[in-house]
Amino acid sequence: MTRTTQDFLADRARLMGPNLPTFYEDPIHIVRGEGVWLWDADGKKYLDCYNNVPHVGHCNPCVVEAVSKQMATLNTHTRYFHDLVLDYIEKLTSTMDPFLDTAILTCTGSEANDIALRMAEGMTGKRGIIVTDATYHGNTSLVSQLGKEYKPKVGFGLDQYVRFVTSPDSLRLPDPDGTLFAARVAEQIDALEKDGTGFATLIVCPYFFNEAFPATNDNWLKPVAEVVRKAGGLLICDEVQSGFGRMGTHFWAHQKMGVVPDVMTLGKPMANGLPVGGVVTNSEILAKFRTNFRYFNTFGGNPVSCTAAIAVLDELLDRDLLGNAKTVGDHARNRLVAMQDKYDIIGDVRGSGMVFGAEMLLNKETNEPATEFTTKVLNKMRHRGVLHTSLGPHRCTLKIRPPMVFGTEHVDILMDTLDEVIEETLNEMDLKAPASLGA
Amino acid sequence: MTRTTQDFLADRARLMGPNLPTFYEDPIHIVRGEGVWLWDADGKKYLDCYNNVPHVGHCNPCVVEAVSKQMATLNTHTRYFHDLVLDYIEKLTSTMDPFLDTAILTCTGSEANDIALRMAEGMTGKRGIIVTDATYHGNTSLVSQLGKEYKPKVGFGLDQYVRFVTSPDSLRLPDPDGTLFAARVAEQIDALEKDGTGFATLIVCPYFFNEAFPATNDNWLKPVAEVVRKAGGLLICDEVQSGFGRMGTHFWAHQKMGVVPDVMTLGKPMANGLPVGGVVTNSEILAKFRTNFRYFNTFGGNPVSCTAAIAVLDELLDRDLLGNAKTVGDHARNRLVAMQDKYDIIGDVRGSGMVFGAEMLLNKETNEPATEFTTKVLNKMRHRGVLHTSLGPHRCTLKIRPPMVFGTEHVDILMDTLDEVIEETLNEMDLKAPASLGA
Repeated sequence: MTRTTQDFLADRARLMGPNLPTFYEDPIHIVRGEGVWLWDADGKKYLDCYNNVPHVGHCNPCVVEAVSKQMATLNTHTRYFHDLVLDYIEKLTSTMDPFLDTAILTCTGSEANDIALRMAEGMTGKRGIIVTDATYHGNTSLVSQLGKEYKPKVGFGLDQYVRFVTSPDSLRLPDPDGTLFAARVAEQIDALEKDGTGFATLIVCPYFFNEAFPATNDNWLKPVAEVVRKAGGLLICDEVQSGFGRMGTHFWAHQKMGVVPDVMTLGKPMANGLPVGGVVTNSEILAKFRTNFRYFNTFGGNPVSCTAAIAVLDELLDRDLLGNAKTVGDHARNRLVAMQDKYDIIGDVRGSGMVFGAEMLLNKETNEPATEFTTKVLNKMRHRGVLHTSLGPHRCTLKIRPPMVFGTEHVDILMDTLDEVIEETLNEMDLKAPASLGA
Repeated sequence: MTRTTQDFLADRARLMGPNLPTFYEDPIHIVRGEGVWLWDADGKKYLDCYNNVPHVGHCNPCVVEAVSKQMATLNTHTRYFHDLVLDYIEKLTSTMDPFLDTAILTCTGSEANDIALRMAEGMTGKRGIIVTDATYHGNTSLVSQLGKEYKPKVGFGLDQYVRFVTSPDSLRLPDPDGTLFAARVAEQIDALEKDGTGFATLIVCPYFFNEAFPATNDNWLKPVAEVVRKAGGLLICDEVQSGFGRMGTHFWAHQKMGVVPDVMTLGKPMANGLPVGGVVTNSEILAKFRTNFRYFNTFGGNPVSCTAAIAVLDELLDRDLLGNAKTVGDHARNRLVAMQDKYDIIGDVRGSGMVFGAEMLLNKETNEPATEFTTKVLNKMRHRGVLHTSLGPHRCTLKIRPPMVFGTEHVDILMDTLDEVIEETLNEMDLKAPASLGA
C-alpha cells in the first residue's frame, strides 16, 4: 500500500512544508540501492550518475557490515575514550600535507563550515568572508549567507559580513592560471578592509563544483592563495564535493590546485550516508578555536560514525578507487568529446576523475546557454533510467558525479542513452539538426 | 594493543586539540554497551545512570535490526520520495497537540535550534533572544551564543541579540507557579524593545535540565508563555533532554508545563545514537521559514535515520517506557528522600520520571552548595561502576538521567552504592557526621 506521486506530494506538503526540493519534473520514489544502481517502487532500475553521498556505492557491504557490527557493540560520545575516533583522524590526516594534522568531527558539512568560519574569525580578529556568487556551503544561519542564488531572508544580519566575487567561468571569462580570479578576490579584500569589516577568509570549493567546475589548469588556486595570505586571511577549502579521491589525480582537490588550505571542511561522502562531517586544520588553528570556545558535538566522532568513515577510506584505498576515477572519468570525457562531433549543442566538455559533464550551448560563438534543452535532457534521461542533474549559473551544464565504483561499462550505458536523448530532444525542440547527420 | 590512559590523552591532544571535554578525573575507555550497562576495555562493568542518547537502551536490538536492514536496502535523501520520513513525522506529531503538525528533520539539536531561531526572526521581523543564564542549546555560531557559562569568544557578533535571565532555582529563588520567572522575562523583553533589537523569542528547556531541573509545579510555564505571546514573540521549547517520555507523566515536558510551544526542537535521544534532530512547529511557521529560505539538509530525514527514529518511538510506545519512567523515577526519588534522613548533606530531592537527582548542600539554612563533595561523589561512583554526573550553576546537583529501560533493580544498585559513597566521602572530607548515625 505504497503512496502514489500525488500522495507523496500531498503528504510532503502537509508534513514537511512548502518549497521542498525534489529532483525531476516527475519525482522518483526510490526504494532500493546497490552499487551504482537504484530501484523505484515499481521495480524500475536506474543508473545513478549523480549521488556522491554513497561514495563507495549504495549499500556498500563493507560499510553496512562495519556499521551493523558497531551498532550492536557500542555507540557513545567522545567524553569517554574510544579508539575509533583517533584511528580515523590519524588515517584521514595521513592522506594530506603534514600541516593538516588535527580535526573536529561533526555531523554535517554545514556544521563543519560554521566552525571553519569561526576559526577564521578567531585567527584574524576580523569577520569579512569572500565567496563566489554561485556557491553553496550549507544551511546554518551563518553558512547559509554564503549562497547568493538562494539568499535567505533570515539570518540575524549575518549577510553584512559576506562579499561575493564573480565565479570562475572558463568559457566566458577565460582565466587559465587563476590570476584574474585572484585579482577579483583582492578587490573584495580591499573593499572589506575599507568598509571596516576586515578580511577574515576566502572559502571556496577547490574544484568549484557548484560553479559548474570550470576548466582550470593545475595549481589554479596558487595566485589567489597568495593574495589571501598576504592580506592576513585564511584560505578555507570546502572539499565536501571535491574530496576523497573524486578528482582522480589527487586524493584532495586542493592538492591538484597547488595549495594547502588553512582549514579544510568535509561532509557528504565521508561515511557513505551516515551523517558525518569534519574540519581538518593545523593544530595551532584548532587550539585557538578550542580555547575560544569549548566545542562539543554529541554525535560527532561517535564509534558508529567513525567505523563507517574508516570503512569508506579503506574501500577507497584498498580498491584504488582514485585510479578507477581517473580511468572511468577519462573514458567518459572521451565519449563526450566524440559526441561533440555529432552535436553542435555540446559546447564544452569538462571535469576531472569522477566528475564530468558538458556545457550545453545554443551558440558556440556567443556561448548562449541551452538551459531549457538541458532541463529536457535530464528529465528524459530519468525516464530512460539514467539519473543525473544540471548545474551552474545557467543550469546548462550536465552534472555527472556518480559513486566512485562507477565503471567504464556504466559510462557506456550513460553515454549511449545520452546520445539518443540529445538527438530526440534536438528534434523535439526543432533545434539545428545534429552537425554530422548529413555527413 | 589498546591505548592506555596516557596514550589516549596524548593522542586526543595531538589529533583532536586541547580543551576536549571528558568525564571523570580518571576518564573511562568504554568498549561495549547493552541496555543500561557499559563495559570498559578491562572488562569492568558500569551501570549507566547518565546517558540519554541511547534512549531505549544501549544497542537496543530493535534499533540495531532496523538500521542494519535499512543500511543494506537504501540510504538516500529527501530529493527523492521515500515513505519513512513521512511515516516518522506523522507518528511523531501524533504525540503532540494538533498545532504542532509539521517538521524539519536535521542531524543535530544544534541544527534544529539554529532553524528555530530563524523561524522566530522570520515570524517577528525581530532578533532579540532571551535564555536563562545556565542553559546550553548547541554549538553553531548562532546557537552557541545562548550559553553564558561557556560563552564563546567567536561568533560574528551574534551575542548582541541575546539577553540572559536568572535561571529558576526552586531552593534559592522560590517561584512555585512561575510568575517570578515570567516577570524576569518581561523585563528583558522591555529592554530588548527599548534598545532597538526587538523581541523575537524565549527559548527554554521546558523542564530546565541544565538549570539543575528546579522543582516546579505543573503548568509552570503558563505565565511566561502569556508574557511572550503578549509581546508578539515565539516560545521555543528545546525538548532535546526533556522529551520522548522522560518526564514519566507526559510524553513532552511542555505538556507537563501547561503550554504548547510555537516551535519545539529535538535531538539527542531521537534515534538512539544516530545523528538525528528535528524542529516541530505549526505549518504556518514552517511555511514562512521555507519561503524565507530554501532549506535542504543532505542527511536530514534519510531512510536510515528515520527507521532508527521510528524504532525508538515504537519501543517507547510498545513497551510503555513512559509508565516505566514514572514507576522507576518515583522509586528513585523515594530512596533519595529516605537517604535524606540519614545524610544532612542531601538538600533537595528533585526530578520527574526518568530524571532525578539531589542537590548537595553544606548548610540547609543558607543553601551553601557542596560542590567539591559532589565532584568527589561522582568520581567515587565511577570507580564503583556507577556512572552519572553533576550539573547546575553550583555543580552540586547529582544528574541522574539514565536510558528509559532503567528498572527499579537498577535504582537499588545505584542507591545502595550512593549510600556507601556519600558516607565514605563525608568521612574523608571530615564533614558533619551523618545525621542519624547516633540515633
